[in-house]
Amino acid sequence: PTHQFPFLSQLLGHVFETSGKRIRPAVTLLAGGFNPHDGKKSEIMATAVELLHIATLIHDDMVDDSDVRHGRSTISSLWGRKAAVLVGDYIFAASATHVCETENIRVIRRFSENIMELSTGELQEMAEAYNCDLTMEQYLDRIYNKTASLLTTAGEAGAVLSGAPEDTVRALREYGYNLGMAFQIVDDILDFEGTQEEVGKPVGNDLSLGILTLPAILALERQPKNNPIAGLFQHPHEEGTLARAVEMIQNSSVIEESYAVAEKYCRTALDALTGLDPNPSRSSLEELVGYVLERRS
Amino acid sequence: PTHQFPFLSQLLGHVFETSGKRIRPAVTLLAGGFNPHDGKKSEIMATAVELLHIATLIHDDMVDDSDVRHGRSTISSLWGRKAAVLVGDYIFAASATHVCETENIRVIRRFSENIMELSTGELQEMAEAYNCDLTMEQYLDRIYNKTASLLTTAGEAGAVLSGAPEDTVRALREYGYNLGMAFQIVDDILDFEGTQEEVGKPVGNDLSLGILTLPAILALERQPKNNPIAGLFQHPHEEGTLARAVEMIQNSSVIEESYAVAEKYCRTALDALTGLDPNPSRSSLEELVGYVLERRS
Repeated sequence: PTHQFPFLSQLLGHVFETSGKRIRPAVTLLAGGFNPHDGKKSEIMATAVELLHIATLIHDDMVDDSDVRHGRSTISSLWGRKAAVLVGDYIFAASATHVCETENIRVIRRFSENIMELSTGELQEMAEAYNCDLTMEQYLDRIYNKTASLLTTAGEAGAVLSGAPEDTVRALREYGYNLGMAFQIVDDILDFEGTQEEVGKPVGNDLSLGILTLPAILALERQPKNNPIAGLFQHPHEEGTLARAVEMIQNSSVIEESYAVAEKYCRTALDALTGLDPNPSRSSLEELVGYVLERRS
Repeated sequence: PTHQFPFLSQLLGHVFETSGKRIRPAVTLLAGGFNPHDGKKSEIMATAVELLHIATLIHDDMVDDSDVRHGRSTISSLWGRKAAVLVGDYIFAASATHVCETENIRVIRRFSENIMELSTGELQEMAEAYNCDLTMEQYLDRIYNKTASLLTTAGEAGAVLSGAPEDTVRALREYGYNLGMAFQIVDDILDFEGTQEEVGKPVGNDLSLGILTLPAILALERQPKNNPIAGLFQHPHEEGTLARAVEMIQNSSVIEESYAVAEKYCRTALDALTGLDPNPSRSSLEELVGYVLERRS
């Protein structure tokens, strides 16, 4: 449709040199493993899902002013914010164009809705920043939009494009949703747990940006008065406020309790698979659940 | 698919309070006027095309650091760059979700490709900034991507969704393409011609951002040596360089010559309509051509 000119090729070259976890395309392909089919449409969809994820990361890094992601310089740090916005737009559109190749209206529509959910999640994060009254419901809604929505689509679309019956589709959508919720909760825990080297960003990064995640919400529930998190949000630039908030979370039971919530989502993800054929795809989907809980970065 | 929360509603409320020219939805609806149909899908498409245009403007204003458009504050000036990127993403996705309601794969695919073209056009503008060696071909390619692509889609999709035969579709795509090229060329001329009040931005704004448009390209062709445009691009912040470049263009024949190029596209747009039924839709499309040439803002 549109030819690439040198500047665009250079930007795309940088973008696709990454080596992410590729969990989204994996779920898409594996979700197609319960109905015999030629696999072409699932492959198209797997690529589109990863492209969409990459586009989201580019805009997120721009919005968060991040210079580095997983040890690599971001587009915005190398070519500026404008280039990041525009190449993100380009890859959003490229992912949607890709999905059209499946010629499946249900999947195409779900994909567009998913892009709305992803940007809604980022807008929620922005609107809710430095708000200590955030409810658990608001948190769960936000991480659905930010993360679980795309894994829900991966499970659903992979199954739909394989021609699987509706109860299989439902099971794999359910699986994707719960895996996604667990994935983001673990991500949010690791922000407090890991060292800077492991997670590629400073410990307590979310809190330092005013973003409340599960461990912090639980910590505020346990200790509503004189909580160092409230202190940090009132004086975000004051020396020592971040360290005190992080230390309180690390030295309490909220990390363990957050893992318990993630584990509950993981169990529900596994339960969703029980009605499906016990084949290699199912085994791999089960292994992915274990990986999500055990990963350290 | 996704529910709106207060911050998002506030942003969307501001965005849709505008009163643009609505030329894109007009072409979409009128292009459906050559085959009897119930009009529902054309209306969906007309809305989607305008939504996409609005999303583009939000990202453009953010990328160009514009505070005002047509007398109204931009999203980025009111809520910051981050909000502008994210609400732009949201409206991009909303427009694509809207198009899915047509359930027409050809139109849905064309729409996604169009988003790629729009961001390519902006990236080209960025990559080509402050380059005096820009060719006419590069300029025409850029304005196709930036502007004519969406009017091409409007003509094509309007006709396709009315169920018109392929030669009618081709005629209306041709019409949209040529109208769009003329529209952007006139826009580029008005940047030199109008007063700040008429066009809502300073005279010579494109040049001041290092963007070469048709009048400037012609001026550089006529006078390749010691051209004040080259002087401006070498010393963009030097007092008087912009005024000298604008003055040279205003006092030469390049404005007239640029209008002649726009008129040629307008004639081709009218020619494309000659094979169609002489009905009210055709009359309106013909009037639009006249409007594009005569407008002053």
